[in-house]
Amino acid sequence: MKISARNVFSGTVSGISKGAVNAEVSLDLKAGTPVTAVVTNASVDRLALAVGMEAYAIIKASSVIIGTDLHDARISARNIMCGVVANVIEGPVSTEVDVEIGGGNTISAVITNESAQKLGIVKGGHACALFKASSVIIGVK
Amino acid sequence: MKISARNVFSGTVSGISKGAVNAEVSLDLKAGTPVTAVVTNASVDRLALAVGMEAYAIIKASSVIIGTDLHDARISARNIMCGVVANVIEGPVSTEVDVEIGGGNTISAVITNESAQKLGIVKGGHACALFKASSVIIGVK
Amino acid sequence: MKISARNVFSGTVSGISKGAVNAEVSLDLKAGTPVTAVVTNASVDRLALAVGMEAYAIIKASSVIIGTDLHDARISARNIMCGVVANVIEGPVSTEVDVEIGGGNTISAVITNESAQKLGIVKGGHACALFKASSVIIGVK
Repeated sequence: MKISARNVFSGTVSGISKGAVNAEVSLDLKAGTPVTAVVTNASVDRLALAVGMEAYAIIKASSVIIGTDLHDARISARNIMCGVVANVIEGPVSTEVDVEIGGGNTISAVITNESAQKLGIVKGGHACALFKASSVIIGVK
Repeated sequence: MKISARNVFSGTVSGISKGAVNAEVSLDLKAGTPVTAVVTNASVDRLALAVGMEAYAIIKASSVIIGTDLHDARISARNIMCGVVANVIEGPVSTEVDVEIGGGNTISAVITNESAQKLGIVKGGHACALFKASSVIIGVK
Repeated sequence: MKISARNVFSGTVSGISKGAVNAEVSLDLKAGTPVTAVVTNASVDRLALAVGMEAYAIIKASSVIIGTDLHDARISARNIMCGVVANVIEGPVSTEVDVEIGGGNTISAVITNESAQKLGIVKGGHACALFKASSVIIGVK
């Protein structure tokens, strides 16, 4: 399987909580970073997800928000990963920002130029990537 | 807290309806515009969200769809905000469209060039911004 | 109604399963392709969605992931549509990929350049488009 989603992180399923339509699935990445996903119950069943299984958290770069000064952020987005800006690619409308988050993982975000400039995103600087649980796709081998 | 999400609107929590996994949270923006969000129950608990609290609705520009002639639109997206196009920034693939929606708020959308051209989006024209409740992140101070 | 979302597919509602907050809605497109959406219960009620009704599945190009070698993919994303790449438009950060999926439908995705290059996406090649049920908006006439 090869997919365009820039962020594919390997981990282990640590929790599953099913609702009527959706389920919340927790993963622990190799580096210990937790990731929370909301997928449909039907997907949990079809993939036979179970605690302890190896799985991937897949997040499209356009779903990722970049933040700074998030130490005291109180925000509903369940996933926040901080690190060092490894690369910045600017276009006329969009800017790609890649953040090294430890454990050998880099998370890519596509944000608007105006945001990148307003936040002062530069290579080597500190930044956090945040994304909603509903933006996460779960994959298994 | 500084984040790349272009759309951060201040308001007051007007309703919370919890399900098994997700919760629907309603906000009234300063200008009276309602915004509906779907976040996880765990986020509602962690942020201690309650009716009457001040909160922010945060929406990434790439989650926003631009429409025209939406007066009679029957569509599941819970949030529709109409106004005047304040700015258009074109790139080779993407175009940013900023719409003034009243109450001092502007909403930014990133759409494809082809869509912008097909819809005839021009500065000063009328346009509506629409986004799903699941695209909204809630923040509190 | 005219909207910027590049992907608007006509079909018939084949199933509705309501939860506490969200509902899962299934559509069969004209070509027989199934599409699964997760929308709020309030939207199902407001649109008076019912099995057998004609409806549209609306998906923003930025929510669509492009994949290859997905034959044996085990992934939570509920919607996968495969076909032939009809067009590729490259920008400095983003690339638009249009895939003909049969039944007269083409699905557009906006991905990063790096992904397009890594996947070797070329006009005339085979590719699959995948998107989460939560990325689908339902529209009715």
